[in-house]
Amino acid sequence: MKQLKGRDLLGTADLNTEEITGLLDLARQLKSQELELKCNKVLGLLFYKASTRTRVSFSVAMYKLGGQVIDLNPSVTQVGRGEPIEDTARVLDRYLDILAIRTYAQADLETFANYAQIPVINALTDLEHPCQILADLLTVQECFGSLEGNTLTYLGDGNNMAHSLLLGGALTGLNVRIAAPQGYEPDPAIVTRAKEIAGDRSEIVVTQDPQAAVEGAQVVYTDVWASMGQEDSANSRIPVFQPYQVNQKLLELADPQSIILHCLPAHRGEEITAEAIESDRSRVWDQAENRMHAQQALMAALLGLV
Amino acid sequence: MKQLKGRDLLGTADLNTEEITGLLDLARQLKSQELELKCNKVLGLLFYKASTRTRVSFSVAMYKLGGQVIDLNPSVTQVGRGEPIEDTARVLDRYLDILAIRTYAQADLETFANYAQIPVINALTDLEHPCQILADLLTVQECFGSLEGNTLTYLGDGNNMAHSLLLGGALTGLNVRIAAPQGYEPDPAIVTRAKEIAGDRSEIVVTQDPQAAVEGAQVVYTDVWASMGQEDSANSRIPVFQPYQVNQKLLELADPQSIILHCLPAHRGEEITAEAIESDRSRVWDQAENRMHAQQALMAALLGLV
Amino acid sequence: MKQLKGRDLLGTADLNTEEITGLLDLARQLKSQELELKCNKVLGLLFYKASTRTRVSFSVAMYKLGGQVIDLNPSVTQVGRGEPIEDTARVLDRYLDILAIRTYAQADLETFANYAQIPVINALTDLEHPCQILADLLTVQECFGSLEGNTLTYLGDGNNMAHSLLLGGALTGLNVRIAAPQGYEPDPAIVTRAKEIAGDRSEIVVTQDPQAAVEGAQVVYTDVWASMGQEDSANSRIPVFQPYQVNQKLLELADPQSIILHCLPAHRGEEITAEAIESDRSRVWDQAENRMHAQQALMAALLGLV
Repeated sequence: MKQLKGRDLLGTADLNTEEITGLLDLARQLKSQELELKCNKVLGLLFYKASTRTRVSFSVAMYKLGGQVIDLNPSVTQVGRGEPIEDTARVLDRYLDILAIRTYAQADLETFANYAQIPVINALTDLEHPCQILADLLTVQECFGSLEGNTLTYLGDGNNMAHSLLLGGALTGLNVRIAAPQGYEPDPAIVTRAKEIAGDRSEIVVTQDPQAAVEGAQVVYTDVWASMGQEDSANSRIPVFQPYQVNQKLLELADPQSIILHCLPAHRGEEITAEAIESDRSRVWDQAENRMHAQQALMAALLGLV
Repeated sequence: MKQLKGRDLLGTADLNTEEITGLLDLARQLKSQELELKCNKVLGLLFYKASTRTRVSFSVAMYKLGGQVIDLNPSVTQVGRGEPIEDTARVLDRYLDILAIRTYAQADLETFANYAQIPVINALTDLEHPCQILADLLTVQECFGSLEGNTLTYLGDGNNMAHSLLLGGALTGLNVRIAAPQGYEPDPAIVTRAKEIAGDRSEIVVTQDPQAAVEGAQVVYTDVWASMGQEDSANSRIPVFQPYQVNQKLLELADPQSIILHCLPAHRGEEITAEAIESDRSRVWDQAENRMHAQQALMAALLGLV
Repeated sequence: MKQLKGRDLLGTADLNTEEITGLLDLARQLKSQELELKCNKVLGLLFYKASTRTRVSFSVAMYKLGGQVIDLNPSVTQVGRGEPIEDTARVLDRYLDILAIRTYAQADLETFANYAQIPVINALTDLEHPCQILADLLTVQECFGSLEGNTLTYLGDGNNMAHSLLLGGALTGLNVRIAAPQGYEPDPAIVTRAKEIAGDRSEIVVTQDPQAAVEGAQVVYTDVWASMGQEDSANSRIPVFQPYQVNQKLLELADPQSIILHCLPAHRGEEITAEAIESDRSRVWDQAENRMHAQQALMAALLGLV
């Protein structure tokens, strides 16, 4: 993985097929404790949005690597006082070894990365959520042995999760079908990019038809209908998204061995029923755990430990 | 202490006499550095209320054990965004090794413990504060050599502190007298439980008479009259609680060798006079320090290090 | 440096010439990794004001020493609930090994130090900012080989930065000129103290004339015109401070080899032009990095590691 040393992960397609596959292998080795890696590095977490899973999973991942973590919550730093990103990035670069950022605009993340020489990781932007996708792919691999030839159907908002799933599936040979209501489709540029990457290896589909999308799928995936910052439109979205709810009836169309994933937090009765998330098919807690292992592998690679 | 491995501490009476005595012995050994224990574990602190002593004492206790700490302040996590406790608990369980929770309802703490397999510690609820009581008992032991046969008088609100003192005294043979104004008595179910546990070994008394309660006591203990969240009623409580103030006059009724304890923060001129808290009898800073040693012992036992 | 063990750093002149020189030497050795020091201590950061650089640089400095850090943000502790400083100080003293405080009144810092036996460090008060000055002097030394005989000109508000520069220059033989508008001069008591310390070794000048102050200077230094808490008067200050802006025209009066320093955050177009801060003469990112090395040296000395 030496080719990843010193690099950033701003979007899923910053990785090529060999690199993403290598990271998933490394994550499995770290999870099984076949391999133990140690360093003496400091991770900064700069999160402009609330977070539980991302913050805790990154922190524990770094602690397992023997390093330290500084939580740069903007509410307690001058980051919130209007200092230009260019300045904050150059200062943090002098103190930290690696930086994970959760922010809104992908462009802000890119500015950070341009001004900081240390590895910068996208820990969620409006455009992408590559760390979540590494955990998702790891979970699908654990359940089915391989990614290639299997189909993951994502139902709901064509948001950052949909984008990263499209790119992650394309890179690894997993077929990805996005079923989203009209007006909530994923960014066409991302869809085009995913199809280019996929080539003949995996099928990339965007549709408005949830039934057709779930038909025979091995993985049924959903996310909240209104993400952080969209709570105002949450109520008006409910009728629009209702047909895309992951429930028993829809799940009957999937592969009988199918699993259910959700990147959490879940709103029972909205995008997923309580019955579905608590069913035997649900792998959401394993998926959440895999955030930690995937991010440990990612940091190990970007820090040059492997 | 192997029987404590993997268990929760949700209330003082989760421990039996042998276990609580064993924890106090262990805390003394850790404090004196006779014994040094090391692990590689991660403690989560999930605090829904402000805290200084509890947060810092838990953190340093874990650092002394060689572990790491993640502060899950709800203001910066999604915990505050209405995710069900059941989900937060199952996710944190996958990342952390042990979790200390400060919240309001005991039932919420119990839900957390039911959904997390890792040890869960009550770091203050409306019902109990068992970690404080471990520190208090350690302090009394340090001053008098033993607990049995001595009397601790608690003056003021029959709150979580009163509850945990009743149960902790009952378990260890320390006589406990609670003097509280009418309408502010401790929960009768806790008093009954304490009397059952105490049997003939220690005397459990609840009274409205502060003078009678302090008579001959070795330990005079108080707490703020209005706890966190009760600030609105603070002014109306003052005249009701005035007779229960720990002051020079009341202290003259106690054992001449008596000590003064307070779980802090103290409101001088309300529940305790400046003269009393700053007197030679005051052991409040030792008591605060003992939070750290008691919690280090507790975590070591729950993590199976001893 | 054994004479610094256990001491506080509340103001720059708590150090004598030998001690400040020794700390700068130590910082250089730590930065170059000639020397590595390790301890097992816990640093508390008690910051009543927002901070990025100070918080991160202190944290990483302690991590490099092998220790741990607890961030005591008053918004999440009881420190904000009106507990007397005397009590908070005595409690924290029992848990922590060293404490850095950022607050408003110097008197509050002094009360903390009086009630805590552990070393207490001024991490910014309204009166002084000694940690910043250690970093500044280290940066000047790196650029010019020595401090003695060189001249540092500070332009702008005669604030805590000006005070600590006056005292730091006086102690190390660096000439210090402060150019501040009428009504914004540094505290005359500090100026007098700096002149006493400087004696014949360095020149201490306070003037209202920015051109005269910059003439031939090796270091041109500025700070924001309105510090944290003074944002209300920021607009009214702009015309008053305009003649003190660090810009190309003013810089032409300085030594042709001069460098530009700024303690950040910078407000481009106010106290400094974008052109100046981004120029080849700017050493502001090195200066920011040196916070970490200087504070690592300071903590190592106060903890008795050298």
